[in-house]
Amino acid sequence: MSESNDALIVFTPSGRRGRFRIGTPVLQAARSLGVDIDSVCGGRGICGRCQVVVSEGDFPKHGLTSSAASLCALTEVERGFDGERPLVEGRRLSCHAKIEGDVVIDVPPDSQVHKQVVRKAAEAHDLVLNPLVSLHYVEVQEPDMHDPSGDLRRLEDALEFEWGLTDLGCDLKVLQVLQPVLRKGGWKVTVAVHSRQRIIAVWPGLHKHLFGMAVDVGSTTIAAHLCNLDTGEVVASAGVMNPQIRFGEDLMSRVSYVMMNPGGEVDMTHAVRAALNELARDVAAQAGITAQDILEATFVGNPIMHHLLMGINPVELGGAPFALAVDRAMDVSASEIDLELHPGARVYVLPCIAGHVGADTAGMLLAERPDLTDKITLLVDVGTNAEIVLGNNQRLLACSSPTGPAFEGAQISCGQRAAPGAIERLRIDPATLEPRFKVIGCDLWSDEPGFADAIGATGVTGVCGSGIIEAMAEMYLSGVMRHDGIIDGNKAELTPRIQSDGRTFCYELLAATGDRPALRIMQNDVRAIQLGKAALYAGVRLLMERMGVEKVDAVRLAGAFGSHIDVKYAMVLGLIPDCDLAHVSSAGNAAGTGARMALLDIQARTDIQNLVRRVDKIETAVEPQFQAFFVDAMAIPHLNDPFTELQKAVTLPERVVVEASAKSRRGRRA
Amino acid sequence: MSESNDALIVFTPSGRRGRFRIGTPVLQAARSLGVDIDSVCGGRGICGRCQVVVSEGDFPKHGLTSSAASLCALTEVERGFDGERPLVEGRRLSCHAKIEGDVVIDVPPDSQVHKQVVRKAAEAHDLVLNPLVSLHYVEVQEPDMHDPSGDLRRLEDALEFEWGLTDLGCDLKVLQVLQPVLRKGGWKVTVAVHSRQRIIAVWPGLHKHLFGMAVDVGSTTIAAHLCNLDTGEVVASAGVMNPQIRFGEDLMSRVSYVMMNPGGEVDMTHAVRAALNELARDVAAQAGITAQDILEATFVGNPIMHHLLMGINPVELGGAPFALAVDRAMDVSASEIDLELHPGARVYVLPCIAGHVGADTAGMLLAERPDLTDKITLLVDVGTNAEIVLGNNQRLLACSSPTGPAFEGAQISCGQRAAPGAIERLRIDPATLEPRFKVIGCDLWSDEPGFADAIGATGVTGVCGSGIIEAMAEMYLSGVMRHDGIIDGNKAELTPRIQSDGRTFCYELLAATGDRPALRIMQNDVRAIQLGKAALYAGVRLLMERMGVEKVDAVRLAGAFGSHIDVKYAMVLGLIPDCDLAHVSSAGNAAGTGARMALLDIQARTDIQNLVRRVDKIETAVEPQFQAFFVDAMAIPHLNDPFTELQKAVTLPERVVVEASAKSRRGRRA
Repeated sequence: MSESNDALIVFTPSGRRGRFRIGTPVLQAARSLGVDIDSVCGGRGICGRCQVVVSEGDFPKHGLTSSAASLCALTEVERGFDGERPLVEGRRLSCHAKIEGDVVIDVPPDSQVHKQVVRKAAEAHDLVLNPLVSLHYVEVQEPDMHDPSGDLRRLEDALEFEWGLTDLGCDLKVLQVLQPVLRKGGWKVTVAVHSRQRIIAVWPGLHKHLFGMAVDVGSTTIAAHLCNLDTGEVVASAGVMNPQIRFGEDLMSRVSYVMMNPGGEVDMTHAVRAALNELARDVAAQAGITAQDILEATFVGNPIMHHLLMGINPVELGGAPFALAVDRAMDVSASEIDLELHPGARVYVLPCIAGHVGADTAGMLLAERPDLTDKITLLVDVGTNAEIVLGNNQRLLACSSPTGPAFEGAQISCGQRAAPGAIERLRIDPATLEPRFKVIGCDLWSDEPGFADAIGATGVTGVCGSGIIEAMAEMYLSGVMRHDGIIDGNKAELTPRIQSDGRTFCYELLAATGDRPALRIMQNDVRAIQLGKAALYAGVRLLMERMGVEKVDAVRLAGAFGSHIDVKYAMVLGLIPDCDLAHVSSAGNAAGTGARMALLDIQARTDIQNLVRRVDKIETAVEPQFQAFFVDAMAIPHLNDPFTELQKAVTLPERVVVEASAKSRRGRRA
Repeated sequence: MSESNDALIVFTPSGRRGRFRIGTPVLQAARSLGVDIDSVCGGRGICGRCQVVVSEGDFPKHGLTSSAASLCALTEVERGFDGERPLVEGRRLSCHAKIEGDVVIDVPPDSQVHKQVVRKAAEAHDLVLNPLVSLHYVEVQEPDMHDPSGDLRRLEDALEFEWGLTDLGCDLKVLQVLQPVLRKGGWKVTVAVHSRQRIIAVWPGLHKHLFGMAVDVGSTTIAAHLCNLDTGEVVASAGVMNPQIRFGEDLMSRVSYVMMNPGGEVDMTHAVRAALNELARDVAAQAGITAQDILEATFVGNPIMHHLLMGINPVELGGAPFALAVDRAMDVSASEIDLELHPGARVYVLPCIAGHVGADTAGMLLAERPDLTDKITLLVDVGTNAEIVLGNNQRLLACSSPTGPAFEGAQISCGQRAAPGAIERLRIDPATLEPRFKVIGCDLWSDEPGFADAIGATGVTGVCGSGIIEAMAEMYLSGVMRHDGIIDGNKAELTPRIQSDGRTFCYELLAATGDRPALRIMQNDVRAIQLGKAALYAGVRLLMERMGVEKVDAVRLAGAFGSHIDVKYAMVLGLIPDCDLAHVSSAGNAAGTGARMALLDIQARTDIQNLVRRVDKIETAVEPQFQAFFVDAMAIPHLNDPFTELQKAVTLPERVVVEASAKSRRGRRA
């Protein structure tokens, strides 16, 4: 079949192959075969992205007729190449390496546009890089008295000729800088094109950097990750307190603020947008760029955060029927929501699912994709509300349950945010009823030598969410607390730790010192946790009932709560249904991961938009069963309840394992 | 063919016909036949737009089988109808009138969406109403705890169900008001949809008014027309001086300002946008609405005005190769160019053609459509530059020629803008060499009894553009001025009107009084007009040469100059080529008419975008022939030149006719 004038080229790993004339650049052959090779400079030997390797030795299996790998000798451009991405030893620039005979070419992962992104430990699925914005370097025809076409038209002609881009729109802001940029770049410019449809940025000369920001707007904290859209890697992260806290600690108090202060939503919108601009500047500075270099941003958040971010009054979300203004994903200009990113930057906000189930849950769905397995998965993101998703590839159900802020350490007398000095682990000796604990920022248990020195001046300041869960579970396991949640006054004679505050009893973790009051778990603290855990469990039960299942195959706990809690204790208290402990795990910041996926991969946006439409939304407020489940779930499960997995877990040998894993989790967090 | 259960319905004037079940509303039948009947309320009997008439008497010719016109009796809704558009006697609401038997239905023009708009005297073509924005009244499903869809989704469902609108986008600004508007309207709202693609406005209840603004941004004046987009009629007009004048009188001095004051373009952009906002408020107030009721605006202007309006530095237009930033039509949000119209308002700017041939020329092309005839038409719009288009359905050529501001009365010693007190008509008695004249604001000639009283306190203040043209032509015809433009000092002995200023002579129109200097046509004034007219004529000649024609079939003079000048005098001086005077006419404000067409008719936008691409642009600055033509055109044509039409025109009897027509023109202007 071989003719003297052409040669067979085979690309790996795609396996695509074809015959091309001798002298054809490898990149051109790849393009015509649809092989994914990156290039910004359009084959000019400038950007260094199109590097490939000649695979030698195994030709026969590819059906090649010649045994010699045949590309032209290293060209002058390749020899002299000194771009920012150096030419790796043994590689060729596919734009300059020309075919001279049959050859197998391997495209390394870092030369592909649609790279796999290395996933983080807690992430369920790999991320694929397939960003919405692409960069295109072009050389534009200079204007001429005999051709009065506008500069934009000649730019578009170049984009069509060199990149096959047609019918492009162009932002007015690009037009406003186009003429000086073209002249500054000597008629060589790099253009950012959004969705292959619209010119959103232009830079003089070759511009290779593309950044995006994925943001999780929580009611308490806002977390942003700055991503390099070429590599998919997170180059900087930062978090700030949501400044809306000054209008109300939790979501409902912020809605109440609006109801009582008409126009107050405008102040809250300004506050969150200002915080986002601060965050953008922060992550940009960490990465050595400016916020104006950020071209894309994606957002997740609960419905009220979502509406306030978008400048929509959230007041309808404060009362039945909890109507969202919009439940679909939103694409807007960054400037429309006052974000001071690149003037052409776009913002994508993941869809909300229902009045209490927001874009944060959509982000979790996207990160976890429970629809891709036939196993019944329970996803839980616990905050002031718990967002709960249950299902598999057959059906997905979602609801929100009002757990209150107790799991975050709020409304607990000795509670505090997770910060150095907070008790996060706690054990009670069943014989002596004496506690021992660990605090954030210190590796020693409180009964180990040197603990007092190790914690230093910070001291022990309070108990964070995971500490409270452990304290309650240990109080129950040691008999300090009864099945119904009552701290058992009968045990007061066994230990001075159980103290009466008059009407009820409490358990003292740490006696008062001169500069700190005693840390005690009060009966009301137990009640707050009971209410929260009953709400969470009732929501889960309601979805299980609807789904017609008595057991779930896997539990994924998202968010800070899910990352820091020891799942065994969650099960002791009955926060989550019985499940093989091996299949209960932290999903990390799944909502944030979803935002990052939507930032890096166009397909993820389509996926989540389709997926949320398939979710059956259950409104707990109108479900009589929810109330019944809630009442039932107030008590702590008996240890001989069907929590069989738990029985195994609370034997002492298991504890060592649990402690070890808690340590490694904290290491990751720090 | 007739069955008992259905009936034949024939619509006039479309002639469309079909059989429908007895009981079908006429509007529904019309819709399914594609008959154009207007409706905003979606057939609810609220808006009153769908009125039709039963045509009786000529059934046989339509092939009807029954001789009785059959609609149901007047319904209660029709009897009680008291909408803003009353039900005309003898008409029916087609949404409520049901078919009861064979019937012929006439759709009167005012019930059609695509109405013809009554054209103005100077306009070449009829305008068609086919606006980009449509209004849709819908009833939206209320939210429900069991259906957590967002308000927008239920609105879109209603728009799809009632109006067949699918896949709509929605402005963020609409979303920000959607929830309160839906609740205020009791879930009945009117939505404005742009291009059947995007929701740009929403009002509670039924909203029937739609307004747009067409604007001609001239370098001296800015003129705006407010149009009712339901009827196409101009409901208010206003003009203001372009405030950029303080940065430079003419275009080039404004570009120079930018060159010498970097950032000065920002000030000029602010100035013109502020003026546009003022104009919008002005026309809106005249019509009893506010600027926020304006949903669409269209703009024409020369390239420099265009760029400054759009916030693009015009500096490249100040020097060769005169590169436009953009030559295509532009669609932007009104807010992107700081216009304080409706928050969802869109702006359409007609395309520029070349660096000196702008969107104003595109507007003129659209208004005149020289491409629709095989006659060779010359279109001229004279300002500081003259934009010249020549051609027919075979070919179109365009250029710009630097005429300077003399034709507008600037740079003329006694010149002034056209305003009360300005001389606009002038005759010189060939025997006595005495002048007589008329001034704007007075119907009497200066030699008629009562003139002094009639002009009153204003007095005679100067000479406007048309007055200068007439003065020069009459000076030539009476022998005061020679063929080469020299004021003839030899005639000074015949009349004290010809006076020496030392080196040259001048002609005194009016002696000085105590409070006003003498009005004189100086030799330099003549030179300025000669330069301007030579530039204009050279541009025209250049295009004729390129077109290969020696004669044009029609001349249309656009703009203020074209409206006020007596074309005969223009021909005496050689401003325009020889042409049958009957085919030389004013095109009125053709650029503004083009803006109005683009406002009223989507198709006009497509037409002009296609048309400008077909125009061959000639850059006079690089054409050696232009220089030659320019030098040749400095002189005044000999009366025995091939200006045969002119020979007839300058006989005395013709003058009476000319004066009469001048009077009627002035009447229109006032």
